[in-house]
Amino acid sequence: MINPYDDTYFMKKALQEAEEAFDKGEIPVGAVIVIKDRIIARAHNLTELLNDVTAHAEMQAITAAANFLGGKYLKDCTLYVTLEPCQMCAGALYWSQISKIVYGARDEDRGCIALNTKLHPKTKMEGGVLAEEASALLKRFFVEKRNLN
Amino acid sequence: MINPYDDTYFMKKALQEAEEAFDKGEIPVGAVIVIKDRIIARAHNLTELLNDVTAHAEMQAITAAANFLGGKYLKDCTLYVTLEPCQMCAGALYWSQISKIVYGARDEDRGCIALNTKLHPKTKMEGGVLAEEASALLKRFFVEKRNLN
Repeated sequence: MINPYDDTYFMKKALQEAEEAFDKGEIPVGAVIVIKDRIIARAHNLTELLNDVTAHAEMQAITAAANFLGGKYLKDCTLYVTLEPCQMCAGALYWSQISKIVYGARDEDRGCIALNTKLHPKTKMEGGVLAEEASALLKRFFVEKRNLN
Repeated sequence: MINPYDDTYFMKKALQEAEEAFDKGEIPVGAVIVIKDRIIARAHNLTELLNDVTAHAEMQAITAAANFLGGKYLKDCTLYVTLEPCQMCAGALYWSQISKIVYGARDEDRGCIALNTKLHPKTKMEGGVLAEEASALLKRFFVEKRNLN
């Protein structure tokens, strides 16, 4: 039997979150956290609406997932996020000891790979899932923003 | 005239926050954010109470200061924090474009200096203000914790 709950399935859910951010005028990044094929947290970037640089999708998802689990460590959890985490989010993921991070598009300038942010030894990271879709949404956001100004 | 509002004055306020964390059974780290000699945010570590790895003193202080200012950038602000910021907090401070970070004790293992977290070009960082007091409080916490277990 085919398992419909693969990385693409969950990244699509994260992309839906990114689209919600887009519709609110936020840089479109979305995230979901999954345990045993079940989504326990969904979030999208809200830095503009909340006037808060810490309101990245991943940060909110980490808080929500810990709240759901009743514990601060995200053991056996996977984060799906449409854009490679930044230093702040990768640093938060370090403390969470999350099992796996799957990102969509690379962030060559401010992502945790280029900036060499330390991940927890228990955490694996993979990228490139629906990267083109995530990247296209970001590009569309910045083009529209430029045209408005 | 002597200005009573020096780094030691504000770090003492951050240490009071750290003591509040200590009394709650939290790793004792405290922070305040100051603009023009006025404290606009106070916070202490609440990771245990909130079951949330993102609830470091600095993160809460950044959110509170932005809320006070009505904008997400902490221009002309100084963060006083009793322990050198971690990757997550330094990453959040990067996004905030805060003008200055003053920390107390060094964190040789998990601090942003050892882990080479990138700060914003607009941000200056200094350390060692009331470092012994901050460090003594942390040591007392871990000794008492060990004795309880």
